[in-house]
Amino acid sequence: MPEKYTIGLDYGTNSVRALIVNVANGRETGTAVWNYEHGTAGVLLSRDPSLARQHPADYVKGAEVTIQKALADARKNTRGFKPEQIVGIGVDTTGSTPLLVAASGQPLAFDKQFARNPAAMAWLWKDHTGVAEAAEITELAKKIRPQYLAKCGGVYSSEWFFSKILHCLRTAPEVFNAAHSWMELSDFVPAELTGTLAPDKFIAGVCAAGHKAMWNAAWNGYPDAPFLSRLDPKLGALRHRLCPRVRAVDSAVGGLTAAWAKKTGLTAGIPVAVGAFDAHLGAVGCGVAPGALVKIIGTSTCDIAVCPNTGKLADIPGLCGIVDGSVLPGFYGLEAGQSAVGDIFNWWVHYVQPGGRKPLSHADLDKAAAKLQAGESGLLALDWNNGNRTILVDQRLTGLLVGQTLYTTAVEIYRALVEATAFGALTIINRFEEYGVKIDQVINCGGIAEKSPLTMQIYADVTGRPMKVSRSAQTCALGAAIAGAVVAGTHGNFALAQKAMTGLKSKSYQPDPQAHLVYRELYALYKTLHDAFGTREWSGNLYDVMKKLIEIRSRARR
Amino acid sequence: MPEKYTIGLDYGTNSVRALIVNVANGRETGTAVWNYEHGTAGVLLSRDPSLARQHPADYVKGAEVTIQKALADARKNTRGFKPEQIVGIGVDTTGSTPLLVAASGQPLAFDKQFARNPAAMAWLWKDHTGVAEAAEITELAKKIRPQYLAKCGGVYSSEWFFSKILHCLRTAPEVFNAAHSWMELSDFVPAELTGTLAPDKFIAGVCAAGHKAMWNAAWNGYPDAPFLSRLDPKLGALRHRLCPRVRAVDSAVGGLTAAWAKKTGLTAGIPVAVGAFDAHLGAVGCGVAPGALVKIIGTSTCDIAVCPNTGKLADIPGLCGIVDGSVLPGFYGLEAGQSAVGDIFNWWVHYVQPGGRKPLSHADLDKAAAKLQAGESGLLALDWNNGNRTILVDQRLTGLLVGQTLYTTAVEIYRALVEATAFGALTIINRFEEYGVKIDQVINCGGIAEKSPLTMQIYADVTGRPMKVSRSAQTCALGAAIAGAVVAGTHGNFALAQKAMTGLKSKSYQPDPQAHLVYRELYALYKTLHDAFGTREWSGNLYDVMKKLIEIRSRARR
Repeated sequence: MPEKYTIGLDYGTNSVRALIVNVANGRETGTAVWNYEHGTAGVLLSRDPSLARQHPADYVKGAEVTIQKALADARKNTRGFKPEQIVGIGVDTTGSTPLLVAASGQPLAFDKQFARNPAAMAWLWKDHTGVAEAAEITELAKKIRPQYLAKCGGVYSSEWFFSKILHCLRTAPEVFNAAHSWMELSDFVPAELTGTLAPDKFIAGVCAAGHKAMWNAAWNGYPDAPFLSRLDPKLGALRHRLCPRVRAVDSAVGGLTAAWAKKTGLTAGIPVAVGAFDAHLGAVGCGVAPGALVKIIGTSTCDIAVCPNTGKLADIPGLCGIVDGSVLPGFYGLEAGQSAVGDIFNWWVHYVQPGGRKPLSHADLDKAAAKLQAGESGLLALDWNNGNRTILVDQRLTGLLVGQTLYTTAVEIYRALVEATAFGALTIINRFEEYGVKIDQVINCGGIAEKSPLTMQIYADVTGRPMKVSRSAQTCALGAAIAGAVVAGTHGNFALAQKAMTGLKSKSYQPDPQAHLVYRELYALYKTLHDAFGTREWSGNLYDVMKKLIEIRSRARR
Repeated sequence: MPEKYTIGLDYGTNSVRALIVNVANGRETGTAVWNYEHGTAGVLLSRDPSLARQHPADYVKGAEVTIQKALADARKNTRGFKPEQIVGIGVDTTGSTPLLVAASGQPLAFDKQFARNPAAMAWLWKDHTGVAEAAEITELAKKIRPQYLAKCGGVYSSEWFFSKILHCLRTAPEVFNAAHSWMELSDFVPAELTGTLAPDKFIAGVCAAGHKAMWNAAWNGYPDAPFLSRLDPKLGALRHRLCPRVRAVDSAVGGLTAAWAKKTGLTAGIPVAVGAFDAHLGAVGCGVAPGALVKIIGTSTCDIAVCPNTGKLADIPGLCGIVDGSVLPGFYGLEAGQSAVGDIFNWWVHYVQPGGRKPLSHADLDKAAAKLQAGESGLLALDWNNGNRTILVDQRLTGLLVGQTLYTTAVEIYRALVEATAFGALTIINRFEEYGVKIDQVINCGGIAEKSPLTMQIYADVTGRPMKVSRSAQTCALGAAIAGAVVAGTHGNFALAQKAMTGLKSKSYQPDPQAHLVYRELYALYKTLHDAFGTREWSGNLYDVMKKLIEIRSRARR
């Protein structure tokens, strides 16, 4: 019997990737990346720095080009490989990236009339034009629907579905009025591939709906029409045109159309799974399971855990989202995250540019910082240069560095920044456990996990837990391919598919007990600063902070 | 009648300068600098980084060489100038820089037996080997002589007279025992020039004795023998061999000896004033008077004020020293200071070395930072990279920076560091005024005042006061020359001599009212952090700090 493969399609901010994976063992046999054609690195910008849009045509062309090229790559890598061996497709995308669609389900951007109108494009996850609307939604929900906020950390974000829709309604009513409805990018792609864009056939994913659009089975789906109408009557009316069918990633939205089969060489009718966000399927690709925390560490982090859907889980204050089935069917998907990790290191390297005539690169800094002992710099930082997503859920926070002397080096500050993100990571783990979500293992993936052994070792030393690293460097696309395998029926369920298709690198990072003891002391100081600057509740005095840092420094240098 | 001149001899850390000044108008007609010959840039070092000594031979040779060369320079600059026109000499030096002397009054270091023994050398101001002894003195004084500490900020420093002596006694008893007594460098030089080193002729200056050796007329001079004996019986015994004659700078210690007249070309018998510290005579050279604060801004600052000796001045908590007559006779000399100013800017430029392949110089940073508006960076820093001398008197403090984002630049941080030192300066001014010492004008001198218009403008904007700059670039030597004029009787008193011999640059820095309003808000936040991290008494919450910085930033960028 010939081996079976599935395709994972992974839509990022600047490009799309197709990955062809052997369902029996997770071997990645073919891949291709295509950079979006429109805008600057795929993003349509304007003079308003908070605006970030994408042209939906890139999504369609991207699927075609990358599938074709990935198949060619697989033929090169695996003797005798044939496209007919592909049995299913999964899709992950950025989000919340909603787009306006006509009554046909086709993107409004494809209508000539709107082909150059930024409001008619896809509103990319990092578009923050809806800041005022987000605040308005949060305020109203606090007053009359507090339950809506309890599942998303207490604040509705400007990055999310309704903030963007309401902003469009307010600032580009002609575009809003011309659209029939809105859908997430993660739902658009599977529907496009299967010809199910039309409202009567369209299926939405619970990942996007639950995490970004306050969808919850407990309150009958999306926020109720009276609530939305209080924001704007037109938003209330839109409620009835939003997709009523919301499913998890173990459902197929349909089979690949003949047209798509023809242009890609795939077999018509192979199932395409319900789409989900990159981080969520990335967690699947890392082998997420109850007790495991998956950290996707790049410019920022997304931290994903699951816990059995026993109906007993309390709301966890400060978590970005708790959505039934958003990661694995039958489990609550729990999403947390740090607003900046790699971005903070990038700031130090690229904005401050320390090191003199031979500026210090990330690699230089990693190498030099690895020679320092925990505590010996006397420095302590807060990792809030881009605000704090978890557990404070507050963008109006900033970085802080304390402990510098006349001899503090750029390398020491770099290490303090890495440590700060480790302390932030520990704060998230602690919050999970405080609310009954036990974390037995931490699996890391993403650029920082791959490229910075220093960071991984410090995370191990700070948390006192081994840091495992996912075997695949393309965990999001791999997770999508796993969803493709599940809907193709090659494995009984996600757990079996993950067992077959995911794995860890042989090297994991073990905590150094000595360093961990020092970091326990430093973390206590971090938590003091965290609470002092980040909460209204804290009250106290910080006289001891600098003294203790000096004390720890003296001990470390002995 | 030929014009009259005096010489100011200024003993710095690495070199000595002689300056020849016209007593009628302050014109500086000749100068010469000589670098000390011994050690590294004049400082004898060891493997112990806290050790810093000097060879007294450099002090003697330095006077001879610089006076000769300054006279030659004056002959070049002023037609018809003759050495006989020099009518007096004044001396200023670093301190506390005590040296051990034999029964003859000659430095012990001149004895062959001790010529290579570091303990027998002059103990330079920045020698910190006596840290433990300083703590011991502070502890004992707190218990049984609190009045001793009330005049020196509550803490006896490791830089000061008795810490060094006690450390020598403990660690090099053979050297201590071989010495008859100890004297300050500022007293040694005038005595050497006038042949008054012998104990029966020797006169000490009130500046060094009062600021560094707890000398006070109110308690009959130096700390009492029982107190010193509690530290060590030999220290108690030394009390009786310390100089009983302590005078202000309007007294002469004697006339120039024939030997010195011969080797310099000066006239024998011309009066040499009692010596004082560089900062104190520097303030005189800046025109210090009641109501004026003189800031000598270099790597650190020394802030000097005077107020009439009415016997009514309360102790001012956190001031380095309050000594009757230490600056001007008949006035209390008040000394405050910041532990690092230029050193903090140097840290940023030389240790962090920001700016990439073309590292940013001080001049680059000054220029770029001058283009920023007050508050627009959203940053706030504490100026404690080297601890805080005034008003917290605590070396166990460190730097702090808050407000950084992913886009914060090296220039913005530099400006925040400059602003931090300005906030520190304002805190000192406020402390003076809170305790009844009114400050009507601020006169600056020193390297930073000369070279950084940015710093001066920010100081004006932060304090809301004009920043004046001393006309002379050699205010310490000028102040010494003024003392030489006063003891030569060319002016009735210091006020008249200062009026004739000092002046201001025509350019002063005027506060910008708009910027001052912003800085008032920022200073409130600085003071909150200052008190939260620097005092045990503060209690509260810092939730508003980052929020307000963002708010101020938004307004500034509008």
